[in-house]
Amino acid sequence: MRIAFLLFDRFTALDVTGPYDVLSHLPGAETTFVAERPGPVANEVGSLRLYADAALADVPRPDVIVVPGGPGQNAHMADGPVRRWLRAADQHSTWTASVCTGSLLLAAAGLLNGRRATTHWLRHDDLVPLGAIPTPERVVFDGKYVTAAGVSAGLDLAFALAGRIAGDFVAQSIQLAHEYDPQPPYRAGSPATAPPAVVEAIRARRAAIVN
Amino acid sequence: MRIAFLLFDRFTALDVTGPYDVLSHLPGAETTFVAERPGPVANEVGSLRLYADAALADVPRPDVIVVPGGPGQNAHMADGPVRRWLRAADQHSTWTASVCTGSLLLAAAGLLNGRRATTHWLRHDDLVPLGAIPTPERVVFDGKYVTAAGVSAGLDLAFALAGRIAGDFVAQSIQLAHEYDPQPPYRAGSPATAPPAVVEAIRARRAAIVN
Repeated sequence: MRIAFLLFDRFTALDVTGPYDVLSHLPGAETTFVAERPGPVANEVGSLRLYADAALADVPRPDVIVVPGGPGQNAHMADGPVRRWLRAADQHSTWTASVCTGSLLLAAAGLLNGRRATTHWLRHDDLVPLGAIPTPERVVFDGKYVTAAGVSAGLDLAFALAGRIAGDFVAQSIQLAHEYDPQPPYRAGSPATAPPAVVEAIRARRAAIVN
Repeated sequence: MRIAFLLFDRFTALDVTGPYDVLSHLPGAETTFVAERPGPVANEVGSLRLYADAALADVPRPDVIVVPGGPGQNAHMADGPVRRWLRAADQHSTWTASVCTGSLLLAAAGLLNGRRATTHWLRHDDLVPLGAIPTPERVVFDGKYVTAAGVSAGLDLAFALAGRIAGDFVAQSIQLAHEYDPQPPYRAGSPATAPPAVVEAIRARRAAIVN
């Protein structure tokens, strides 16, 4: 099972490393980081560089595609190498997945037409003009398409997807090995639970966070 | 505020990328990945490579040190460049943190003598001969030392540490921006909640997971 993780300049690191750290432990998984050009790819902060092993053309038919979000995603919304690769690779994939605003890339590539999907809570409305149906859940399955909410939701997506691919026992084993028993020290992870002043501050900084 | 993330061959990716993705968003944070030699460093699976920006000697006095775990940690338990760097850097750090079996490295460096600490649930007993007091909590603060349980606990550590460094409002803002509102699809993240057969399977594969 070949799993391709898309990288592009200014991606969000956890969007891709969270799912990677789960899915790479599936039996028989062969993981590849793929980008327009092989070599180091910098995240949105600029201080983390993940190494892309392969160019897009080198990975034409992965079984699973994982697309992260991040401010750099905007550069690939229009027709171009990344969008063309997504459309072509998706024709043969078993699962096509995204984390955070990665779903906007999938939708821009025309892959979520009429499908239920989620994204970062600040960007739900942006799915509509791209043809998808915004669905305010943490992980949304619609056929072979699986989308996750913001950043850290990629972990929940990965465990759910691991279960679909390899069964509950394997998914639960990876969860226990990773001690994924989250205990956030604050209850601020969603606009419904965060203090109103925090929600306001993040809305005001929206452009810096998801664009 | 200079934050140094230690890398070594066969580290666990999420141990370091989880905390990075939180702490790198602190106001004024200057993050560096440091390893014995600059350049790409491969994780335990071998298919993820993070780029180390600096050699150990280039980062002598970080304000915050973050040490991941992973099977490769064993190679640095004895006296050597990594242990010497940890001991020297720790003399000036404001916070010294670890995720998963990274605490065994801190303890082997003599930094957790008589201190409460946690680690991956499979390795709690191994803290004892290294002089630390195993404490079965997800995140343990003892003075300036902060240790997290297995892998994904690094996220909870990072938000707790962000709060200590920059206050609740900043930590909550990062949590909301990252939509850290975890909803694991299974209740298998700790030996207390996972199905007994899963716990047995992981105990049997212990050597492959934490060594």
